[in-house]
Amino acid sequence: MKELKKGTISTPLGFKTSALWCGLKKKKPDLALIYSIVRAHSAGVFTQNLVKAAPVELGIRKLKDNYAQAIIINSGNANCCTGKQGLDDALLISRLLSDQLHLPAKDVLMSSTGVIGKYLPREKIIKALPKLVGGLGFNNAHKASRAIMTTDTFNKQIAVEIKIKNRPVTIAAVAKGAGTIAPDMATMLCFVTTDANIGQAALKKALKAAVDASFNCISIDGQMSTNDSVIIMANGLAANAMINENSREFKIFFQALKYVCLELAKMIVKDAEGATKFIEIIVKGAKSKKAANTAAMAIANSILVKTMIAGNNPNWGRIPAALGAAGVDFDADKLELSLGKKVVFKRAIPVLKDRQGLIKSLKKKEINITANLNNGCFEHTVYSSDLTVEYVKVNMAYN
Amino acid sequence: MKELKKGTISTPLGFKTSALWCGLKKKKPDLALIYSIVRAHSAGVFTQNLVKAAPVELGIRKLKDNYAQAIIINSGNANCCTGKQGLDDALLISRLLSDQLHLPAKDVLMSSTGVIGKYLPREKIIKALPKLVGGLGFNNAHKASRAIMTTDTFNKQIAVEIKIKNRPVTIAAVAKGAGTIAPDMATMLCFVTTDANIGQAALKKALKAAVDASFNCISIDGQMSTNDSVIIMANGLAANAMINENSREFKIFFQALKYVCLELAKMIVKDAEGATKFIEIIVKGAKSKKAANTAAMAIANSILVKTMIAGNNPNWGRIPAALGAAGVDFDADKLELSLGKKVVFKRAIPVLKDRQGLIKSLKKKEINITANLNNGCFEHTVYSSDLTVEYVKVNMAYN
Repeated sequence: MKELKKGTISTPLGFKTSALWCGLKKKKPDLALIYSIVRAHSAGVFTQNLVKAAPVELGIRKLKDNYAQAIIINSGNANCCTGKQGLDDALLISRLLSDQLHLPAKDVLMSSTGVIGKYLPREKIIKALPKLVGGLGFNNAHKASRAIMTTDTFNKQIAVEIKIKNRPVTIAAVAKGAGTIAPDMATMLCFVTTDANIGQAALKKALKAAVDASFNCISIDGQMSTNDSVIIMANGLAANAMINENSREFKIFFQALKYVCLELAKMIVKDAEGATKFIEIIVKGAKSKKAANTAAMAIANSILVKTMIAGNNPNWGRIPAALGAAGVDFDADKLELSLGKKVVFKRAIPVLKDRQGLIKSLKKKEINITANLNNGCFEHTVYSSDLTVEYVKVNMAYN
Repeated sequence: MKELKKGTISTPLGFKTSALWCGLKKKKPDLALIYSIVRAHSAGVFTQNLVKAAPVELGIRKLKDNYAQAIIINSGNANCCTGKQGLDDALLISRLLSDQLHLPAKDVLMSSTGVIGKYLPREKIIKALPKLVGGLGFNNAHKASRAIMTTDTFNKQIAVEIKIKNRPVTIAAVAKGAGTIAPDMATMLCFVTTDANIGQAALKKALKAAVDASFNCISIDGQMSTNDSVIIMANGLAANAMINENSREFKIFFQALKYVCLELAKMIVKDAEGATKFIEIIVKGAKSKKAANTAAMAIANSILVKTMIAGNNPNWGRIPAALGAAGVDFDADKLELSLGKKVVFKRAIPVLKDRQGLIKSLKKKEINITANLNNGCFEHTVYSSDLTVEYVKVNMAYN
């Protein structure tokens, strides 16, 4: 696998994009279109939130046939908590767009991100459709990557190339998100394009597993969005021999897709609202994978741990306290804990001598926390960010 | 039941207190003693955290016989994550104190609050014991209430009088906590004194139920402390007819105890670190009491809801988003939501017309959030606070 520097979602064969400003945000691109020149095997993974945005409900329905050809994305409005009207708006926009693209309506998906509980200003989007379609091209992906941003401070793109039986296959993706998983302002969206020729079942399985190993391993504020979506379109134009489940090629494809998703997930954490630190949390020695995940997320979501890291504060006792309240079984006397790669707690006692050294290591941009529960053989890693005054300011104001 | 203005934990018959500065904190009282002149039926409710402080482990053990006569409390150090040494320290201090009080060691309890992972400077406490014992009196309760504070900005006391078969019985309590349930700086401690004559089983049952209906209904930051303790001593000096379980008198006693605990719980929320608002969250129409509690806590602990309230921000979509991710079953289309007593969401659509009115009502000091899941007949109320820049600053710095 090799990473393609400056690769975009237009790098795989046959994917065009377009982006423009239609008036949902203040003079920033706010509408994007991703289009495959041929119908593509497609799959999606969507938020588990019971309160789902209209475009998410629609996307789940439309992807039942595992096909799609275009995705329209708006920022500035989540189209969530908007009832039947919200569904009608999303349906109308995708139908009108499908007419202009000469596609069946069911192959056009929609994604939205922005504030919850406000009706979509659909006329603004409808009016912009002809220009959006007219602007489709192979060189607009950077602009499209910016049009889906909300509080993101940088755009997040990646592309890699793999070989499937000696044929080059490209996988590319774009993501947005800066407060994963935050309900209104900071929905996580990711769109993956690939020219791989891959079966529908294999594609679905690869996406689900890649999302589990990437976007589901990050937490900025423990909040699950109503709009989170990861959608992949595989148009087959690389003309490789079809990739099916359980083959050697499937593993190559899956590893590359996982890499793409994990890199974007880490970018999202690095762009977390107000964050100054990137925190890697490893829980070892858990009784099950689920226990390792729960324990790691309890540390990742503890606002006392997050403020501690923000303040270069060596007050590590907050970590065992968060672990002990996680609802995961372990023996506190067997817990081993390191912070900033320094062992701080072992055999039930504090073992750190060099407090100044710990403070120094906490001043780094990337902080590791490793907890060994010594209660089993499962391990899990999650990525998180610190909680700063700036995060609170951003979220006090955003509406 | 009548509330006794200016009542303290010395108001019930036979309770003396003492407090002084022994050097754990900077020139603030940091050591307190609560003493009953006769042996008292006693009970305790302690943190569910797997990581328990040494004095908590000791307290659980010592209360197995349902008796106590004295409690020594220090602030400035939690004596947690301190292994065998921590237990030895707490044992030694309570043994030396019991000698000076001429009591069996098992009737002397200890509580600690402060930073985790540092050994207790036990010599400072031991040196202060004679003066602490010598200072016992009926008029020191205010000083004792301050000696147990950490980041609290005001001391929290209450006393009520009830009649048990025409005999006056007094229940009083003191609490500390400003970041419930926060692992190191803001442990919640509460000590209840009463001269009631009440059976041990009845006392235990009343305390457990009162804590469930009060301290377990508040959340400032979703963090569970390693040191949380509520301890009651009932010395029987009111000489009322013994209160037993399932009697009419038990109900009177329980209601008064619940009132005392709930008032202190609300004071803790009002004193939450950096908080500017008191939030009452009512979840109705849940399938079970547990579901109502989980849903209400999901709102109470959502840092996006908390920052929204801090910013007088009418971005109410964060509330259904938090509910939908709570893991509680309901139909999003049937959800009814009001914020600041104004209905904002009903029958799957946003119904608020008067946005300015909502912003105005959010500027009040006390904010109500009511969510009706329309999915059953259970209801639960919790109390919470907003999340401010000040909270983050306090917790970045504290160690």
